[in-house]
Amino acid sequence: MNLQSSILLYMIGFMKKIINLDVAATTPIKKEVLTAMKPYWNENYGNPSSITKIGVKAKQAIEKSRKIVAEYLKARPQEIFFTSGGTESNNLAIFGLVNYLEKIGKKISDLHFITTNIEHSSILECFKELKRRGAKVDYLKVKNNGIIDIRDLRKLLKSNTVLVSIGYANSEIGTIQPIREIAKEIRHSRKDRVYPYFHVDASQAGLYCNLSTNELGVDLLTIDAQKMFGPKGIGAIFVKASINISPILFGGGQERGLRSGTENVPLIVGLAKTIELIRKDFEKKAKRIKVIRDYFWKKIKKEIPEAVLNGDLENRLPNNLNISIPLKNRKTGIDSELVVLCLDEVGIISSTKSACDYEDDGSFVVRSISGNEKLAKSSLRFTLSENISIKDIDYVCLHLKKIINKQIKFSF
Amino acid sequence: MNLQSSILLYMIGFMKKIINLDVAATTPIKKEVLTAMKPYWNENYGNPSSITKIGVKAKQAIEKSRKIVAEYLKARPQEIFFTSGGTESNNLAIFGLVNYLEKIGKKISDLHFITTNIEHSSILECFKELKRRGAKVDYLKVKNNGIIDIRDLRKLLKSNTVLVSIGYANSEIGTIQPIREIAKEIRHSRKDRVYPYFHVDASQAGLYCNLSTNELGVDLLTIDAQKMFGPKGIGAIFVKASINISPILFGGGQERGLRSGTENVPLIVGLAKTIELIRKDFEKKAKRIKVIRDYFWKKIKKEIPEAVLNGDLENRLPNNLNISIPLKNRKTGIDSELVVLCLDEVGIISSTKSACDYEDDGSFVVRSISGNEKLAKSSLRFTLSENISIKDIDYVCLHLKKIINKQIKFSF
Repeated sequence: MNLQSSILLYMIGFMKKIINLDVAATTPIKKEVLTAMKPYWNENYGNPSSITKIGVKAKQAIEKSRKIVAEYLKARPQEIFFTSGGTESNNLAIFGLVNYLEKIGKKISDLHFITTNIEHSSILECFKELKRRGAKVDYLKVKNNGIIDIRDLRKLLKSNTVLVSIGYANSEIGTIQPIREIAKEIRHSRKDRVYPYFHVDASQAGLYCNLSTNELGVDLLTIDAQKMFGPKGIGAIFVKASINISPILFGGGQERGLRSGTENVPLIVGLAKTIELIRKDFEKKAKRIKVIRDYFWKKIKKEIPEAVLNGDLENRLPNNLNISIPLKNRKTGIDSELVVLCLDEVGIISSTKSACDYEDDGSFVVRSISGNEKLAKSSLRFTLSENISIKDIDYVCLHLKKIINKQIKFSF
Repeated sequence: MNLQSSILLYMIGFMKKIINLDVAATTPIKKEVLTAMKPYWNENYGNPSSITKIGVKAKQAIEKSRKIVAEYLKARPQEIFFTSGGTESNNLAIFGLVNYLEKIGKKISDLHFITTNIEHSSILECFKELKRRGAKVDYLKVKNNGIIDIRDLRKLLKSNTVLVSIGYANSEIGTIQPIREIAKEIRHSRKDRVYPYFHVDASQAGLYCNLSTNELGVDLLTIDAQKMFGPKGIGAIFVKASINISPILFGGGQERGLRSGTENVPLIVGLAKTIELIRKDFEKKAKRIKVIRDYFWKKIKKEIPEAVLNGDLENRLPNNLNISIPLKNRKTGIDSELVVLCLDEVGIISSTKSACDYEDDGSFVVRSISGNEKLAKSSLRFTLSENISIKDIDYVCLHLKKIINKQIKFSF
């Protein structure tokens, strides 16, 4: 090979476009966010608890950020608390309430909790731990389309229910729950009691859903920057002013006593900038990506007739497509992990399920909604990035079809 | 004022050197650390749990970082777990053990803990919470010089002691505890039991102390990047292979089940780079800064004869100077908050005590070692940055003397 062709090949490799269809796992950080964080690494790097100018500047940056997050969630700044991410926010909502209730003399064995059977692991594992400690936990079954039935929730609500935790948009199938109606039902069930509280994990909902906490009527809400083109390691929790929860991390009493530890100033500023960027042309972006996602699904159905959609198509994140390819007349469906690896080889990033589901046993979400092992083990999750084009989708479908056909040919 | 003098004044303001004597509160990030983190924001941004190339790259970066941290702590990579910082690591050591013991059927009221009365708030508040939950906690009193007496520890050790937690270097007075001797005493007390475990909060010790966990003989050890010229929001905990602790945050099972939540890849890489930089010329830097610190103290004693040193001068971080100025024949000592603010005005950053001590009541550490209210309320902490010069110290002493003299003049 001569020098010219070497250079050409190098450039092709360098120019090879990566099509990221896995933004539900995590997202790259927008340049504007990096720029916003920059001065807080080694210029305004003070400890916000210090009384010096450099500390005050850091404190001001945090409070400005808190205001931006509060506006986004239509809440008051004092209702926003920064955490290290979605997992911590979810843990704080659940164990923070338990810590508070135990502090005022309640026994864990007297407490009842409700969640759904398709939540993210950072919710399900908390409830598993609570059950181990003696709490009563009911798992609301979602319907085949991935959405809960309010009547089912009504049946589960008890006089000792202290918390209902339901994810806004599912991390795997992207289905959106009727949060406002659920909140209404929960409020109705309270009568003169203050419980149950309603916690919503909105980690996956940040980009495309209405997160106005006052309109939704929620008590606790989790957000996570790394799912919104912001940095990993920073999230927040909305805690309605009237709600009592106790800390789960103890120390210097930062975040008005609810979350100790020196505030992560650069990443807090980054979260605020992430949110400012999201809010720009919010609806326009959602419409555009929905058109492309629907085109994607139509094309898959046409090219791979065996493909099945998981979850409701309408009540769903506009950038989420989750399918299974069960393969009729065969023992198993496609090997979806192999499909993900083959797509990766041609520059297409995708996933089989949630990156945080560490069980090596297919998608528990797809299993829950379908009761079908073949579907659960042949699922593919595509979560589109806002810069995706129809051309990209055509490229993806071309390769997807090739990969699937090869698998079908060699499977028996 | 004409244009020329305006520009001159502006330039003087712009060029004004900031002398940071508060690196114990937090540190700016070294440029090399920022450079190391850069590719992980929006190039290698994958979720480490993803099986795609971009996920594998992120995973590899984490494991490479873990190896660097392990080498620094003379531990095995599988003994290192990343957290969101010192506070979380300390909470994980303490509540992680409690969670484990409760899981195997122990009652919290049967458990005994030992710590000292001068620990950081992220230790003391954990034990306060444990006491509230029914555990027995003994607080070892340090001697006047801020160092513990091993014989006092020996007296406190009981057959149901499960954990001793002692900070390596105190965050306020910088005194260094005889960790190796303490570890020996604890091992000796075990007989055939596996308890007590020995946890060391080394958050303040990263820059200048030997953190070889095998030589020290510790079981659990906390480090925090933001005290070592690395990023805020990232720390680690060493958990000896034979030690059993349970998670305090539940979810996706990252960090081999001990710390759930998507790994903060850029900051983990940043922590590793921070450590690589620390290890360079480690002893040379310590020697140099000790000479300057000793010069600083000599000069203060000469210029402000009423100044008193808090804590031992020898067994102390080489960059820490903590003094009180009690003012003889007067009701109170100097107003140290006012001194900090006045120093800040001339570009010198300092503090009165730990930024994480939110009580508005002087330094509890100085109160503990001295039993003297005047000393507790007139304390000043100077923690020197490695780029400090004798000239800087002269500048600081000049202003410190002026400020103190003005206060003495107006106090009665």
